[in-house]
Order: sequence, then structure tokens, then C-alpha cells
Amino acid sequence: MSKGFLLVISGPSGAGKGTVCRRILERNKKLVFSVSATTRLPRRGEKEGVNYFFVDEEKFNKMIEDGDFLEYANVHGNLYGTPKKFVLDQIEKGNIVILEIDVQGALQVKQSYPEAVFVFLLPPSMSELKNRIRKRRTESEDDIDLRFKNAFEELKFVDEYDYIVINDEVIEAVQKIEIIIEAEKLKVKRLRNIIDSIMK
Amino acid sequence: MSKGFLLVISGPSGAGKGTVCRRILERNKKLVFSVSATTRLPRRGEKEGVNYFFVDEEKFNKMIEDGDFLEYANVHGNLYGTPKKFVLDQIEKGNIVILEIDVQGALQVKQSYPEAVFVFLLPPSMSELKNRIRKRRTESEDDIDLRFKNAFEELKFVDEYDYIVINDEVIEAVQKIEIIIEAEKLKVKRLRNIIDSIMK
Repeated sequence: MSKGFLLVISGPSGAGKGTVCRRILERNKKLVFSVSATTRLPRRGEKEGVNYFFVDEEKFNKMIEDGDFLEYANVHGNLYGTPKKFVLDQIEKGNIVILEIDVQGALQVKQSYPEAVFVFLLPPSMSELKNRIRKRRTESEDDIDLRFKNAFEELKFVDEYDYIVINDEVIEAVQKIEIIIEAEKLKVKRLRNIIDSIMK
Repeated sequence: MSKGFLLVISGPSGAGKGTVCRRILERNKKLVFSVSATTRLPRRGEKEGVNYFFVDEEKFNKMIEDGDFLEYANVHGNLYGTPKKFVLDQIEKGNIVILEIDVQGALQVKQSYPEAVFVFLLPPSMSELKNRIRKRRTESEDDIDLRFKNAFEELKFVDEYDYIVINDEVIEAVQKIEIIIEAEKLKVKRLRNIIDSIMK
């Protein structure tokens, strides 16, 4: 059987990471979504270990010190991080783990776990990206401009990634990611043990 | 548009390279089959530049000296080689070139052109491999044993390859190779120029 791996789905704000990841997980029940740890309080309906691992700041900082995160960040005063143990345990079981994350986070993962497979999700054009940022957010034009500028800067990190998927139609982007997953399962490094079983 | 690339389909004798490659080319008319140069004489119906590039020994040796081959070999007294220029010209045009070749040849290509994508085609088991070698050839048991031993030795080179495809059912092996091709088209190194066009 093929070994598991971590698939990082990343890209600038407005590329459609959230929508694409939801569809992939709906269509592929065996994929495992990476669960983040956070210091923010649970919202109604959120379950420990399903939506997040809820931890206090002391515990979170201890985890940082112990190198327990593939990446972490401070978002509006709350800490969020991807626990290494959860991901590696799933991979050990042969599962494929999906991590949806912004570009800064993906670059951290690239440092801490370069064996992951990195997909850069892109809008079909920068004007479409601006439309999407504008549609989605109830923010001022200044905020939209800032997000847009950040997105533009983030495109420069594409060379740190393995694959590019243009998210024009969601279903096509999803199918492309499914193809990447199927191809990655055929990589020699993940099927190496099959050789031994054939040689018997 | 995605850049072209060379897909090397290789594996031990009896893995079914020929059958699989024929089916892939039938189903994917845009793929280009790599045309070898050879010093053997044309057989009836064989066309220059389609089946082979027919050259004399002097010319072939000159091509070796000039580094014009991705790989070459002497088979029963005739020289066969893969001309670099043909492959690179096709890739330059954005085409995907398929090269069907034995393990020794693939290892040479890996040296001369490591950018290629290497697929190792495998039988489902060594006993099935022996069946296939036996069925196909009108050779003595000693010859069959030798081929089988060689095939076994060749499995050790799998780590030089990128992907493993088990050829149990031909159609499934073909579909897996098609998935590999589609995924490789999405590699950042082949779509790098799309970023520039999006940034405009």
C-alpha cells in the first residue's frame, strides 16, 4: 500500500482555498483534514479535536518551545498552529492529510516538513482576485487594496511549491488536485515497499 | 501553456512496456513517440523519421562523439540510440515525448537528461513476470532464466525513477500513466510563465 503524505493547499487570499478544500473533502471521504490548535475560545458547535484543539496560551507557548508545530501564527491576538503530531500520526497510518493554509504558513511548513506536497492555488487573473477579495469582505477600499498588494507579493513565492492549480471553475480545480493526489500515490518514495513484496 | 517534457517508460523485460506504450499513444494523439536512430537496415514498411532514423555506422559513431544521444546501445551487433535533438525540439514546441526503453537505457537518460520524468513499469509479481517472459519468447529455458535474473537485478534501480506503475491490467496501467502526465503538466517548473501572465 502507498504511504500517506501531507498535501498543503495554499495561495493568496481570494484564490478560493476554503471552497476548493471543502469540495475535495466532500468528494474524498478518506482524506483527513489537518486540525489546528488555537488559543481562541470555542464558538458554539465547535468540537475539540474536530474543528480545533483548544489550548490555553501557556500550553501553546510550551508547544512552540518543544517544536510541536509545523507552523504557527498570531491572528488578531489569537494563536493558531498546525500540530506536527496529528499530521505525522495520520501519515503513519497511510492517510493523506490536507492542510489549507496561507502563503506565510506554507513557507513555514516547507521549512519544518519539506517532504510535504505543496499546491499553489491561483485565481485566473489579478482582476478576478480583486473581485473576489471585494465580494467576500465587508472591508474598506484601503483594506482591499492592502490584501490585493499582499496577494501580489505572495505570488513571488510560487517557486517554493510543487504544483500550480488555477482556480477558475471550482470543480476543475478540485479535479486537478485529485489528479495530483493520485499521481503522488505512485511516487517511488511512497511505493518503495511494493518492490520488496514483488521480489518475494 | 504548460511546457513539454520527456516521459521515460521503462522497466524489466516482461513488464509490458511495449503494449502499455502502444495503448497510451492510441488514446492520446498529442503525445509524441521518441524516434530512435539505428544502424540496422530498414525492414519492409519502415519509414525514415517515423519508425527510425536510419544512419550508417560512421554517422552513428560521429553522433556518439558529438554527444548527440540521450542514450545508445549495441543490440546484437546493431547500434540504437535516442537522438537528443529530436526530443528537445519536441519539448521546445510544448509537446510531451514518450520514450519506451529498457532499464540500462533509462539509467543513461537519467545521466544525460535528469529533467525527464521516469516511470518504472512493474509486473504484479515475479512469477507473473516469468510467465510473460516464457509466453512471449521462443527461447530455451536457460535464456528465460537469464532474462528473469536480469529482470530481478534491474528492480534494484527503482530508486532512480520518479513513479512506479504496476502493470496488472493494461488499461489500469495506461490510466495511471495518463494521471502522471496530467499531474506533471501542473508542476510549477512547467507553468512558471503563467505567473507572469496572471501578474499583468
